[in-house]
Amino acid sequence: MDTRERLIETTRELLWERGYVGTSPKAIQQRSGAGQGSMYHHFHGKPDLALAAITRNADELRERARTAFDGPGTVTDRVTAYLRRERDALKGCPVGRLTQDPDVMADPDLRRPIEETFSWLTATLAGLLAQGRADGELDPALDPQATAAALVAVVQGAYVLARAAGTADLYAQAVDGALALIRPHRQKENH
Amino acid sequence: MDTRERLIETTRELLWERGYVGTSPKAIQQRSGAGQGSMYHHFHGKPDLALAAITRNADELRERARTAFDGPGTVTDRVTAYLRRERDALKGCPVGRLTQDPDVMADPDLRRPIEETFSWLTATLAGLLAQGRADGELDPALDPQATAAALVAVVQGAYVLARAAGTADLYAQAVDGALALIRPHRQKENH
Repeated sequence: MDTRERLIETTRELLWERGYVGTSPKAIQQRSGAGQGSMYHHFHGKPDLALAAITRNADELRERARTAFDGPGTVTDRVTAYLRRERDALKGCPVGRLTQDPDVMADPDLRRPIEETFSWLTATLAGLLAQGRADGELDPALDPQATAAALVAVVQGAYVLARAAGTADLYAQAVDGALALIRPHRQKENH
Repeated sequence: MDTRERLIETTRELLWERGYVGTSPKAIQQRSGAGQGSMYHHFHGKPDLALAAITRNADELRERARTAFDGPGTVTDRVTAYLRRERDALKGCPVGRLTQDPDVMADPDLRRPIEETFSWLTATLAGLLAQGRADGELDPALDPQATAAALVAVVQGAYVLARAAGTADLYAQAVDGALALIRPHRQKENH
């Protein structure tokens, strides 16, 4: 791994463990093994490096979501795969957690990738739900935009419940409960 | 307000603004106007004071939830009131946010009131949903425990979406989407 790469990965780790305020240039240099000169050769400073780290977190989240959304099966299968995909529920979401970091939220440049990620996630999921509704798979009364926002929120909130309880079971339970939102239309009529 | 009270309220404010690590005994003394001797007269130290502040946050959350759950109307009305009650969506939940604070989560005494609050919230909501199901108001296929976990998660995640977007509209949208989980059984059949 080259120095630039090591600096970004170290900053991701430190942001995760200590938040923005606890991620000092000195800690980044010590853990990455890069000198001060080298760090300022690659990045203008801590905000610039944090932006690279946050952007990478956001890109990875988007990539994993896309894999589930573009996967095989019905719309219900794909949304279920997205909600249930293996996650480290006790660690939390590396992008969602940043919304609780006051220093990150106060800086428009650092907030932008977080805002764009959730906006993209909700819009993409809404598009998928609208398709499922048009195909007659989902309930015609389903509101794609509101349902997508609810499902993205459930994932974020399920991390909170899992961390509060100290067990990933709570994540699974919240997500299972939310799946009733997209129970296929036909199954519903068979009740 | 007496000194003990001022110390607790100041610690709540600082925990909210700066997290546990950023809440120094010195900052508490300066903002509350209490001297060091006075602070250690009322509390053993920062962890003891933080526990009093967190417990008060938890008690207030429980009290507000109870008001909605015990309110007038059907189960659907009461759960809707709980989800839609006026919240400062951009600030976030004072209890849920603490699950992202590594120092709070690492201390079993500080974590306990957070764990108990979410456990109580989910169990109380599940009881209400079970009652609505038994009365024939809610879908007989509804799983009270999983649905309660999903609804509590939606509230927590809706704060994340609102903060990421910088607008409370996202909170309202996620909550509205989740309300389909408890759409009364009869209305559903009328579609």
